[in-house]
Amino acid sequence: MSDIYKESVKLHEELKGKIDIANKMEVSSKEDLSKLYSPGVAEPCLEIQRNPERAYDLTIKNNTIAVVTNGTAVLGLGNIGALASLPVMEGKAMLFKKFANVNAFPICLDCEDADDIIETVRRIAPVFGGINLEDIKAPESFKVEEELQDLGIPVFHDDQHGTAIVTLAALINAAKVLGKQVNELKVVINGAGAAGIAIAKLLRCFHIDSELCVSVKQLIVSDSKGAIHRYRHDLNKSKTELLKYSNFQDIDGDIHDIIKDADVFIGVSKGGVLSREDIENMADDPIIFAMANPEPEIMPEEAFAGGAAIVGTGRSDFPNQINNVLAFPGIFRGALNARAKVISTEMKLAAAYAIATSVENPTRDMVIPSALDTSLAHKVADAVEQAVYHEQQLEEEIKAEEAKLNDD
Amino acid sequence: MSDIYKESVKLHEELKGKIDIANKMEVSSKEDLSKLYSPGVAEPCLEIQRNPERAYDLTIKNNTIAVVTNGTAVLGLGNIGALASLPVMEGKAMLFKKFANVNAFPICLDCEDADDIIETVRRIAPVFGGINLEDIKAPESFKVEEELQDLGIPVFHDDQHGTAIVTLAALINAAKVLGKQVNELKVVINGAGAAGIAIAKLLRCFHIDSELCVSVKQLIVSDSKGAIHRYRHDLNKSKTELLKYSNFQDIDGDIHDIIKDADVFIGVSKGGVLSREDIENMADDPIIFAMANPEPEIMPEEAFAGGAAIVGTGRSDFPNQINNVLAFPGIFRGALNARAKVISTEMKLAAAYAIATSVENPTRDMVIPSALDTSLAHKVADAVEQAVYHEQQLEEEIKAEEAKLNDD
Repeated sequence: MSDIYKESVKLHEELKGKIDIANKMEVSSKEDLSKLYSPGVAEPCLEIQRNPERAYDLTIKNNTIAVVTNGTAVLGLGNIGALASLPVMEGKAMLFKKFANVNAFPICLDCEDADDIIETVRRIAPVFGGINLEDIKAPESFKVEEELQDLGIPVFHDDQHGTAIVTLAALINAAKVLGKQVNELKVVINGAGAAGIAIAKLLRCFHIDSELCVSVKQLIVSDSKGAIHRYRHDLNKSKTELLKYSNFQDIDGDIHDIIKDADVFIGVSKGGVLSREDIENMADDPIIFAMANPEPEIMPEEAFAGGAAIVGTGRSDFPNQINNVLAFPGIFRGALNARAKVISTEMKLAAAYAIATSVENPTRDMVIPSALDTSLAHKVADAVEQAVYHEQQLEEEIKAEEAKLNDD
Repeated sequence: MSDIYKESVKLHEELKGKIDIANKMEVSSKEDLSKLYSPGVAEPCLEIQRNPERAYDLTIKNNTIAVVTNGTAVLGLGNIGALASLPVMEGKAMLFKKFANVNAFPICLDCEDADDIIETVRRIAPVFGGINLEDIKAPESFKVEEELQDLGIPVFHDDQHGTAIVTLAALINAAKVLGKQVNELKVVINGAGAAGIAIAKLLRCFHIDSELCVSVKQLIVSDSKGAIHRYRHDLNKSKTELLKYSNFQDIDGDIHDIIKDADVFIGVSKGGVLSREDIENMADDPIIFAMANPEPEIMPEEAFAGGAAIVGTGRSDFPNQINNVLAFPGIFRGALNARAKVISTEMKLAAAYAIATSVENPTRDMVIPSALDTSLAHKVADAVEQAVYHEQQLEEEIKAEEAKLNDD
């Protein structure tokens, strides 16, 4: 066991829990007690009963989210169960607090069935202003997120969209550094789990605002059996859906075949799947995001030796660390500020662009900000909040237009 | 709307939530990040997977409880629903923190069925070291508490046992002040809801430690239809169970009949049910705990006019405020310290005696400590913790005895 693991256990033993509940004011007098609790508290309760929206003014709902997991797909550990996943969720809560002053509380569910998770989240939802789904294995995680979109508060599966947003941000800057256009890049994604699918979807998004338009035209996704195309008969629902976004020519082959002539490799698969030769076979100045943890799909020195122009990984010991922490705190901060009901595609794209543009002068060694950049989350939050208002405005304009048409 | 209610709304608007999540250490460096989160956190996770008890050393479980409600029986407000009950639960969390440094998080469940509540609490249990059930209507609250006793962490319905413990503490001191023996008192309880039933049970407890033996011999409980006895055919399960604890002579009559010659009246019913004449009909120097809120069963001045020796209410503007806050913080503090698996009767009695003895020189105007006494919870916690160890020791002695018998 290396030092970092030993030291982590020691630190966890010292802390005995990484987060605390803190009172926002002192309870010193009988008067405090009667305003904060009985009997005065009856009136805020009744105001909320009359108008549920008042909960955002009068309770923790306006700034509290749940980090919900069942511990079935934790980091590189797999299905370790609800209780054993708690240290990760506490860590996540710390990051929410540090970077965006969001109060996040870990909810580790002792159930594996998607319907049970959905039911439980619906039941516990009243307290929360948002739900961050975390480390729930596929396909349950897809179903859970999809079915909970009507909850009235944002439900966001970070393993999907957090990764996708940060990857897109890195890609935008990498293209800029190399003088290329994102939408003209030929992109290969290796890995068709939660992250791979979400990246594919986000790279194919058309945005209402042309400035935020990405829409990579040439995209192929590969799973462990090779390229995903319509002639394969082993595709689950999520992979089948990918056919709407990728590989319109139904190109077949394994990752070593399909990577040929690609401009971009995005790896969310497993360590060491690529060789120097694979990189040599790519187009000129290829971009390599090898995000498998802890061992990337190809080590940066190997990728550079094969001709890579820009390399990003998930690790903090190499440049260009593509890390979800760049996205999730600001996204929830913005969503909570705007009282958004969902995290829309527009909000995700706005977050990706905010992350990208926060790097003033991107270089090959810095296409993405540092994971410890404390100013970033607020920029992301502002962009996300503006995206919400922009969408609301568009909706109102459409409604006004429709009303006018009906009048005519 | 009186000032206190207006001011409460104003304060709630200012605070926008009464509790915060706080990080227990700064995350300032990449090294912090790798110990608190990825990759180091993997090792604490694996330790817990191998040995679930390690969660108490490595996570918030050792000091975190859930305040669980569904908002169906909130204070004097009734069924206002999960969301509208949140200000009360936040207030409760504040009190847990202030008096006993227990981290309590509100869980407001959007479901009414007892089985749904039970199922949900089981699913969310991994994160918590205890469950405080709150403001769930009867009979669901009884079923929920009863069925969750096997959860492996203490599950405590405060509306029942918190009230019972504090009432018993007040009664012990009131008897002491008047030179009476608790077990010789003739007691009438008006109200057969959660609190009334729990008080009846606790007053009839025999304790392994003779010093903590209460066991009131003459006890009658009345609901709105009069005395509860075995010839009534309208009794639900909980009320039927009361026949094991009370009214062995099956005395019939309404509260005005059965209060005659009683030494103690305990009211957990509704305002104004007693008159001065009722008090006059009681035994000499009667003890009146009129705990209906906000209007007591009889106002103190009326009770004294009728001959009452000692009067307690639930209100902070009269002496002898019988308030759950005297019990719940210390009880959970003690239970968490001892890693108790349940809140046993012995623990409840130990808490009641600790509250009673914390008043060094009880008088008619002070049979119970002040609700703002910050030293009390730690005394209660110590007593509760010792009770756990005492029980564990007894269990071990019994086991050793049995082993010896088997050997012989």
